[in-house]
Amino acid sequence: MKNRLYFDRLDNELIKDDLFNKIKLERENIGYYTLPKQNIYEILEFVNDFDINIENIMVLGIGGSSLGAKAVYEFLKPIQKPKRNLFFFESTDPLNISTLLNQVDIKKTHFLVISKSGGTVETISIFKYIFAQNSDAKNYTFITDIGSNLDKFAQDLGSKVFYLPPNVGGRFSVLSVVGLIPLALSGIDIQALLNGAKKINKSFFENRKLRDTLIDKALFYAKNHERYSINCIFAYSESLKYFTEWFVQLWGESLGKKQRHSIANIGLTPIGLIGPKDQHSFLQLIMEGKRDKTVTFIKLKKFTPKMKIPNISLPHLESLDTLNSIDFHKLINMQCDSVKEALLNEKEIPIDEIVISAVDAKSIGELIYYYELLTSLVGELLDVNTYNQPGVEAGKIILKEKLNSSNS
Amino acid sequence: MKNRLYFDRLDNELIKDDLFNKIKLERENIGYYTLPKQNIYEILEFVNDFDINIENIMVLGIGGSSLGAKAVYEFLKPIQKPKRNLFFFESTDPLNISTLLNQVDIKKTHFLVISKSGGTVETISIFKYIFAQNSDAKNYTFITDIGSNLDKFAQDLGSKVFYLPPNVGGRFSVLSVVGLIPLALSGIDIQALLNGAKKINKSFFENRKLRDTLIDKALFYAKNHERYSINCIFAYSESLKYFTEWFVQLWGESLGKKQRHSIANIGLTPIGLIGPKDQHSFLQLIMEGKRDKTVTFIKLKKFTPKMKIPNISLPHLESLDTLNSIDFHKLINMQCDSVKEALLNEKEIPIDEIVISAVDAKSIGELIYYYELLTSLVGELLDVNTYNQPGVEAGKIILKEKLNSSNS
Repeated sequence: MKNRLYFDRLDNELIKDDLFNKIKLERENIGYYTLPKQNIYEILEFVNDFDINIENIMVLGIGGSSLGAKAVYEFLKPIQKPKRNLFFFESTDPLNISTLLNQVDIKKTHFLVISKSGGTVETISIFKYIFAQNSDAKNYTFITDIGSNLDKFAQDLGSKVFYLPPNVGGRFSVLSVVGLIPLALSGIDIQALLNGAKKINKSFFENRKLRDTLIDKALFYAKNHERYSINCIFAYSESLKYFTEWFVQLWGESLGKKQRHSIANIGLTPIGLIGPKDQHSFLQLIMEGKRDKTVTFIKLKKFTPKMKIPNISLPHLESLDTLNSIDFHKLINMQCDSVKEALLNEKEIPIDEIVISAVDAKSIGELIYYYELLTSLVGELLDVNTYNQPGVEAGKIILKEKLNSSNS
Repeated sequence: MKNRLYFDRLDNELIKDDLFNKIKLERENIGYYTLPKQNIYEILEFVNDFDINIENIMVLGIGGSSLGAKAVYEFLKPIQKPKRNLFFFESTDPLNISTLLNQVDIKKTHFLVISKSGGTVETISIFKYIFAQNSDAKNYTFITDIGSNLDKFAQDLGSKVFYLPPNVGGRFSVLSVVGLIPLALSGIDIQALLNGAKKINKSFFENRKLRDTLIDKALFYAKNHERYSINCIFAYSESLKYFTEWFVQLWGESLGKKQRHSIANIGLTPIGLIGPKDQHSFLQLIMEGKRDKTVTFIKLKKFTPKMKIPNISLPHLESLDTLNSIDFHKLINMQCDSVKEALLNEKEIPIDEIVISAVDAKSIGELIYYYELLTSLVGELLDVNTYNQPGVEAGKIILKEKLNSSNS
């Protein structure tokens, strides 16, 4: 993975060293930092022993319990036929629930119930619906915090339970059992995924180059958070679509906060774009709209399969013969470069570019860990608690009241 | 459809009348206003005579040539099995192209090539790839501007060609042949879709109530565009996911502009959210982040199918028994209301709510036309040309140069 910044770097080593030291301190307490080095023996054993007749894994989980696994699964699915299909229940929309259930043979389906707290309304509602028709303990695996009510329920039921490691929040949990269990069941090489993350971890904590780039980027984003309050990812590969949804949660929910040492509302707004499609949608706004956006282009170095635009000339369309004999993978990267250059010419739009190797588990592991580190760095600089989400509680309390009064 | 505003309305009838008069003037020149009343006889005849052995329609089109049809198709698909499946080629990513082509039996597939200008790089590249393997004129239908090079090519080839009506831009074209042909081929009731749009058209131009609401909303957005520069749609139904993508293009590309009478870069940033999923992602940022966002909740009055949370109590999870016997459709709307109330309690976040009847063609027609009108109103107030997109040209010119030099 390569990351090139096209904006000015801050030249103050003291500030950079201070930030790096703070992150090293944080690493002692925040769980996600150590996930790349975890022992996955228990997971692999569980997956090896798993019923080979099960063709579908239905994940009952929402937000941090689904977005990460979905990002990795959808990234790799087009190149590698899944050993088992994954489905994600992420809504209380009855049409969505029934459509998903109609797609599978329930006899060949296993349910993964994932809720950190164990009390997520969406997850438990859907679980109740399915469990009422099918209460066999062996059809369920649970992933939750140790000692949660869901843990106790699962223990009584006699189902297998996995626990989240301590101090790993939902949106930082994709490289824990939350992501690894469904991904391993679908046949994805989770060791390669972790190796990608491990590589970034090492090159941040032990190798000056990536550390400097990440710190310089974080400093730029934090310093300019008022002016450039919107951060776009412009990923030139359809397979990164769900990765951008994962990024949106990570960035928005981690950095949109009241500041720790003031009461100011602060935050950076994430936007996920896919090229070249969104050149025909959002690009006009970046180019000519309010200059409040940074853009990170993500490119793939290697695309599969090799496909060429054929060398044929079509009557009246000869002006497009310049496309002839061009590889599609070359074209898509040329499109990315062209938009990048056009935006750079505008001067006022801060741009950087990330290049990952290919559509493989290691590359997405790198990208995930890169963005987790960047989020931690920016959160530290913005003086927010990166790892909580107090703002979602008010709506939950109101819902609870509504449910109570609708039942009484 | 109902729309309720929870923010203060401007009390100046002169400004409102002036805006309404400008839109009435614009209606004379801009094509989309008259689309609801068009005669669709030719389209219906084409579809009635269409080969019944064709099971798949592959749309080669990008941006305005695909997002609208996709929004309607994906909205209705879960409740009504399509007569023919629609697929959308929206990327030059070779993995995406090959994955789509592998999903269908080419003998049972028809290709709709849609490009207003006739020279869209993505569309023509993919067309060349497919045409080189399959050059039978009867497998293709073209939709383009009359007299374009693609029109000439299609005429020479002997394929059927449909023309965009005059002065209808891509992102306002879903209710023209661009959207109606693929939708009618997939079995959707396009007259009901147009009837929805017609209803909104009538109640805006002839009925005070919706006009007042739309104008008040547009005035609020325009007046506060610096402070509230981000407009979120928070739609509580999974089936509106692609509608929000259509909205993002419509809003971003129409309103992100240099002003007509100044050189200022101006624009409103659209965000599409789906509830309850994004309560676990973006909500924290709305609630506690920078107060730069408006939120429009979209609710469905009627959900199908009827599905209830069963009346079972699970050991250790008794605190969630308040969910028992609740209809899922009631739950999802209670979730929407709870978040709305929580945000209203914050005072500084401008909220409104749209309620549409059900997942049917008429309701999505209403929603589409409502947003087209709102976009026109805000564009007029922001002093931008709502209907062009000059900012995307620079990247196209650079790409052309790259293609030229890679060939020489």
